[in-house]
Amino acid sequence: MNSSQTPTIQLAQQLLRIDSVTPDDKGCQTIIADYLAKLDFNNESMPFGEVTNLWSRRGQTGPLVVFAGHTDVVPTGPVEKWQYPPFSAEIDGDMLCARGAADMKSAIACFMVATERFVKDYPNHPGSIGFLITSDEEGPAVNGTVKVIETLAARQEKIDYCLVGEPSSDKKLGDSIKNGRRGSLNATLTIKGVQGHIAYPQLADNPVHKALPALAALTAIEWDQGNAYFPPTSLQISNVRAGTGATNVIPGDLQVMFNFRFSTEHTPESLKAGVEACLAPFNLDYEISWNLSGLPFVTPAEGELIQATSDAIAHCLGYRPTLSTAGGTSDGRFIAPTGAEVIEFGPLNDTIHKLNERVSLSDLNKLTEVYYHILINLLMKAA
Amino acid sequence: MNSSQTPTIQLAQQLLRIDSVTPDDKGCQTIIADYLAKLDFNNESMPFGEVTNLWSRRGQTGPLVVFAGHTDVVPTGPVEKWQYPPFSAEIDGDMLCARGAADMKSAIACFMVATERFVKDYPNHPGSIGFLITSDEEGPAVNGTVKVIETLAARQEKIDYCLVGEPSSDKKLGDSIKNGRRGSLNATLTIKGVQGHIAYPQLADNPVHKALPALAALTAIEWDQGNAYFPPTSLQISNVRAGTGATNVIPGDLQVMFNFRFSTEHTPESLKAGVEACLAPFNLDYEISWNLSGLPFVTPAEGELIQATSDAIAHCLGYRPTLSTAGGTSDGRFIAPTGAEVIEFGPLNDTIHKLNERVSLSDLNKLTEVYYHILINLLMKAA
Repeated sequence: MNSSQTPTIQLAQQLLRIDSVTPDDKGCQTIIADYLAKLDFNNESMPFGEVTNLWSRRGQTGPLVVFAGHTDVVPTGPVEKWQYPPFSAEIDGDMLCARGAADMKSAIACFMVATERFVKDYPNHPGSIGFLITSDEEGPAVNGTVKVIETLAARQEKIDYCLVGEPSSDKKLGDSIKNGRRGSLNATLTIKGVQGHIAYPQLADNPVHKALPALAALTAIEWDQGNAYFPPTSLQISNVRAGTGATNVIPGDLQVMFNFRFSTEHTPESLKAGVEACLAPFNLDYEISWNLSGLPFVTPAEGELIQATSDAIAHCLGYRPTLSTAGGTSDGRFIAPTGAEVIEFGPLNDTIHKLNERVSLSDLNKLTEVYYHILINLLMKAA
Repeated sequence: MNSSQTPTIQLAQQLLRIDSVTPDDKGCQTIIADYLAKLDFNNESMPFGEVTNLWSRRGQTGPLVVFAGHTDVVPTGPVEKWQYPPFSAEIDGDMLCARGAADMKSAIACFMVATERFVKDYPNHPGSIGFLITSDEEGPAVNGTVKVIETLAARQEKIDYCLVGEPSSDKKLGDSIKNGRRGSLNATLTIKGVQGHIAYPQLADNPVHKALPALAALTAIEWDQGNAYFPPTSLQISNVRAGTGATNVIPGDLQVMFNFRFSTEHTPESLKAGVEACLAPFNLDYEISWNLSGLPFVTPAEGELIQATSDAIAHCLGYRPTLSTAGGTSDGRFIAPTGAEVIEFGPLNDTIHKLNERVSLSDLNKLTEVYYHILINLLMKAA
């Protein structure tokens, strides 16, 4: 079969031709639900606000293996700069070109075809297979995965293994899987002074001058050295603002925004305490507000999910993946706290969120095969 | 005579009822010129661009004593917040209330009445009296006093003594006169880094982090200790900007604006060299642009002008003024480089540029008397 005529590619094209920019699902999940219904899945639509979510399950017993993903895509940017219209899903050689091709509707197509093949080969498999699909992973992520997880938790429906189809591969398919993510903690720090005319500094109190040594100390801290799973905790200042724009006015306050990406060596509380302790000797008049966007989580390398995935990649592709906890946040942060083993494994991420996003056809066909073997490894090995 | 019915107050009201917001003179200088013409002054209108300037002189010989000032005023701000309409020049008790009452049309009225009295008392005085009046002291100050000075210099017309009627008084009339101003030098410093996603700090280079120790060092420098005439040189950061507003992006550059108010212990060149030397060890990738808005100048305390003024204040008010070089820039910076002795001496400055600007009637009447005695001291003492 020509690689462009496989069920995986045809299904990916069908999903990619829908312009489902966050939070509009625009019928993608109906396609998925209809497909899974034919495989004896029980579909539950779980809309919250503007967000469309699908929870679909086949089987009543454990272990429950879940494929998780999102049908929403980021905006295209200027359409005229795309080589092909971003929702045409054109094939150019071995590449399928569309917004969402890599992040991440194609991986959903791979989930679906792998599941169909598995269900046909093992109609009476032990355990259960679930699909957790949202239309708001790229947006506020308030009414998406987190709400589905809350709903499942409320009825004691427990996920054992969750594979998120985010594009984790770096140079070649399956070379890297994410087995966790650092935590992310944002702070907005306002250092107060007294505004005044620059000709009369003795009547003003320049908050920038007062803050500089404190901020220099804050950014010089080595918070930890990371651990087996995590790179070192990093503090980065993202924004600083002071002044009216006028050259003759001493500003009244300085606003500094910074972000921690933190390992499991730290908690939000330990980081807040560290910041407070660092600032204390400088006697600043300041206010600080904190916003926790995610706790760190990690799925141990020796767990079943990583073993099953690594074995499937080795079987299908001939090499084993490295594990990584680097990169941005993902919906895995909402699933991991339930106790599930969670990884992200999908296609190459080199074009995500960019103009001319694209993914390799042959990679997608291989990915379907790897996902199929992961299901076998998790559900049939013990059987 | 009731203090509100003197020629000084009536003339001040006439000028203050004209809404001459920078750079629109709106006929103020015509009133002044007509008044001086009757006293045998020779008027020259010197318009440049949108700016109206008046140069008026009585006499051909030296010494040339000049009264300098401006007919433009800063905007009123919200009119409904004024107790009286800002161009009604209402009298409330001892106070004359109007935009420009203190800064500085009232002082021009005092100049005029003092001059009239002096000319009537001493019609054949030695030397000359000049008026240098602009309509752009509060604005860009490009087509105002500086252009008149250039015109006079081109024809070798040399000012010996110049009294600028800016509101120099602090707590009571004549307690302080300005005998110089600090220099003002602006810098815009851009520190370059490499923008990137905050989750991948190793791929970015945060310009804020790199700049903090350098800026802390820069603001900690004691540039000088001032001298007999000047307070210490001061560096103040007026504006800092970095970041896109997003919390997950490391900024690509940091922009810092700062200003020196500097004494005669420094030159612009020595300050620039000091900044460069301070930044050098930090190995920053930076660009800096400089803008000199004025060199420092000082009129020595032992000069004729300060003696004449101090004696006149002592004679009329019973105390002597202190000398100061503090405060913002003024048009004196353009006059002093000609070699003239320059001071600023006018009413209280507590309401300038504010809502409900006002000045004391009795102070204005006394100010006319002091200005009259300054003319006597400078032109008639030696005669």
